[in-house]
Amino acid sequence: MTDREHMAAALALARRGLGNTWPNPSVGCVLVREGQVIGRGWTQPGGRPHAEVEALARAGEAAHGATAYVTLEPCSHWGRTPPCCDALIRAGIARVVVATGDPDPRVDGRGLQRLREAGVIVELGLLGEEARAQNAGFSRRITRGLPLVTLKLATTLDGRIATASGESQWITGPEARREAHALRARHDAILVGSGTVLADDPELTARLPGTARVPLARVVADSRLRTPLASRLVRTAREVPTWIATRTNQRPGVLAPYQEAGVQILPIPRARPGLDLAALLGALAQRGVTRVLAEGGAGLAAGLLRGGFVNRLAWFHAPGIMGGDGLPAVQPLPLALLSAMPRFHRIASRPLGQDWLTEFEECGRCSPGS
Amino acid sequence: MTDREHMAAALALARRGLGNTWPNPSVGCVLVREGQVIGRGWTQPGGRPHAEVEALARAGEAAHGATAYVTLEPCSHWGRTPPCCDALIRAGIARVVVATGDPDPRVDGRGLQRLREAGVIVELGLLGEEARAQNAGFSRRITRGLPLVTLKLATTLDGRIATASGESQWITGPEARREAHALRARHDAILVGSGTVLADDPELTARLPGTARVPLARVVADSRLRTPLASRLVRTAREVPTWIATRTNQRPGVLAPYQEAGVQILPIPRARPGLDLAALLGALAQRGVTRVLAEGGAGLAAGLLRGGFVNRLAWFHAPGIMGGDGLPAVQPLPLALLSAMPRFHRIASRPLGQDWLTEFEECGRCSPGS
Repeated sequence: MTDREHMAAALALARRGLGNTWPNPSVGCVLVREGQVIGRGWTQPGGRPHAEVEALARAGEAAHGATAYVTLEPCSHWGRTPPCCDALIRAGIARVVVATGDPDPRVDGRGLQRLREAGVIVELGLLGEEARAQNAGFSRRITRGLPLVTLKLATTLDGRIATASGESQWITGPEARREAHALRARHDAILVGSGTVLADDPELTARLPGTARVPLARVVADSRLRTPLASRLVRTAREVPTWIATRTNQRPGVLAPYQEAGVQILPIPRARPGLDLAALLGALAQRGVTRVLAEGGAGLAAGLLRGGFVNRLAWFHAPGIMGGDGLPAVQPLPLALLSAMPRFHRIASRPLGQDWLTEFEECGRCSPGS
Repeated sequence: MTDREHMAAALALARRGLGNTWPNPSVGCVLVREGQVIGRGWTQPGGRPHAEVEALARAGEAAHGATAYVTLEPCSHWGRTPPCCDALIRAGIARVVVATGDPDPRVDGRGLQRLREAGVIVELGLLGEEARAQNAGFSRRITRGLPLVTLKLATTLDGRIATASGESQWITGPEARREAHALRARHDAILVGSGTVLADDPELTARLPGTARVPLARVVADSRLRTPLASRLVRTAREVPTWIATRTNQRPGVLAPYQEAGVQILPIPRARPGLDLAALLGALAQRGVTRVLAEGGAGLAAGLLRGGFVNRLAWFHAPGIMGGDGLPAVQPLPLALLSAMPRFHRIASRPLGQDWLTEFEECGRCSPGS
């Protein structure tokens, strides 16, 4: 096995923790001695223990003289746990291969420095691009005070989410819906507009069999506080974190019954239409959210696109055509010029039964064919 | 090489003729003796010479005792050329492997019978499904008096073809546009609504470098005869077949200037909206058209879908989002129930630069996830 293969394995381990470690990054670690994998670890639910500590615990004495492949620079500061650098040094690790540096100002190179000073061989950058993509939510929160936003849409071929009369269940089939739940599980929070709550009364949980996970925070953008007290979200707010973002000047008397039901209120400045989404996303980041899945509806999607907040796109297409009177997936942006259209880079596409999922990354305003 | 590989090669040859042989089918033929390919042929532009005759001419004397792999039952009747069965028998072919029978009532098993009576070993059905898909236009014309209809659309992810102000060039990039021309070349005729002529003044030719082809017939569905006499279509009607389908009760004086410019008028009964599309497609089949590419606009697409005339779908998606005020690809169908939505089977998808093409086949009204 090559260095690259070991790091790829560490990235695959780290992927297991996505959505489950916030506000911490999800990290993977593989320990190898004389070509044998002697320990593996990934960030545990809630963000600790860290990946390195997990892997060292598995390896025990065998760690002495081993190489550690770590997807993110080991931490050098005392947080809720002792620094991983110290643990690696203490275990006698001879060489540490790191995919990418930690943008956290409390680390930011100090981890690597500390290892080097202890005589450990340190290499930086192997599969760095992949690691940065995996940690994009964590980095974005640290460096910009915003979470990574994935916009998820499920439409017909002609971009419709419901018939003119509002019928929308089910446009996509069971395989696509299962994948949508897996997508939720890889995010920290799920964001919807109040129209979606009124239309569908959704539960907004990641229903996956047999996975004990940090529950997904459910966030409703609801400037006018239209979420019914009888909605599933409010009724289950004591079991699953439920946050309602609403305009700052709501009367306390209106908020009280929500708060009594366990809902947390995020006061956000108004915008036209709705709420100031930069402020809303900033409030989520402040609460530790690194990865947000925006699921609907068409107004929220338009607002996020208009503001340039959509970092990734997960588009489920069903092979049907609904026609021009169906409800559009995205409200008017509106675009004055075609050249101003938000464009994305297609990364991957895969079939899910009769449907298929295509994933995109932001690319600013790329030109067609570029 | 196996029988199956030789037949696959014959199908690949036949594919070269698609769009170029109407009203005849496009057929491929491979002649093999003692494991050596000794002749290859496919239906030539305009429908003759036939594939078998082409292949036999290449093989010469070597054809004696050879096996012929033919994608469609060899003809047994005198048309514009002598029957291919006789040519195969005369050349001393020992065995004929046929993918599928010819639905033409003048053949329909008589070709196979004639070969068997002459002592030739005949096998039917190898890669029959693939051959039937390839000949679907020819069969549909013969058995139902209608051409195969491929609906081509090029939209944003959210199913839009132009901004609210009508800007539409270019949504897709150069690779997708090149592929759209190749798609045109595999069809006999191209069909658009008059709105597309008014909006874009298109040329509607298959612009492919270095291919001498039977020109694509250009058909405008134009109940109110809105196509301008100064349009590119009318101005080039003497070089490229140009047919305008319009309502039956147009005054001859209105039609005359079009006819003088070389346009052929197809009188079609009216429908609401537009023309009776069954009658229009029937008129195309009567003129020998086996494969029609419908390219727009949104009204024609809706009419074809409403009538259940869309056999195949070629959807180019660009990775942009235009929002709900963009012009929809398909006008209202309208759908009373989601279960009535036209659904398709996805066959293949491939990237074209930043865009991608997904191809579908009709599947009636399949249920999601089936």
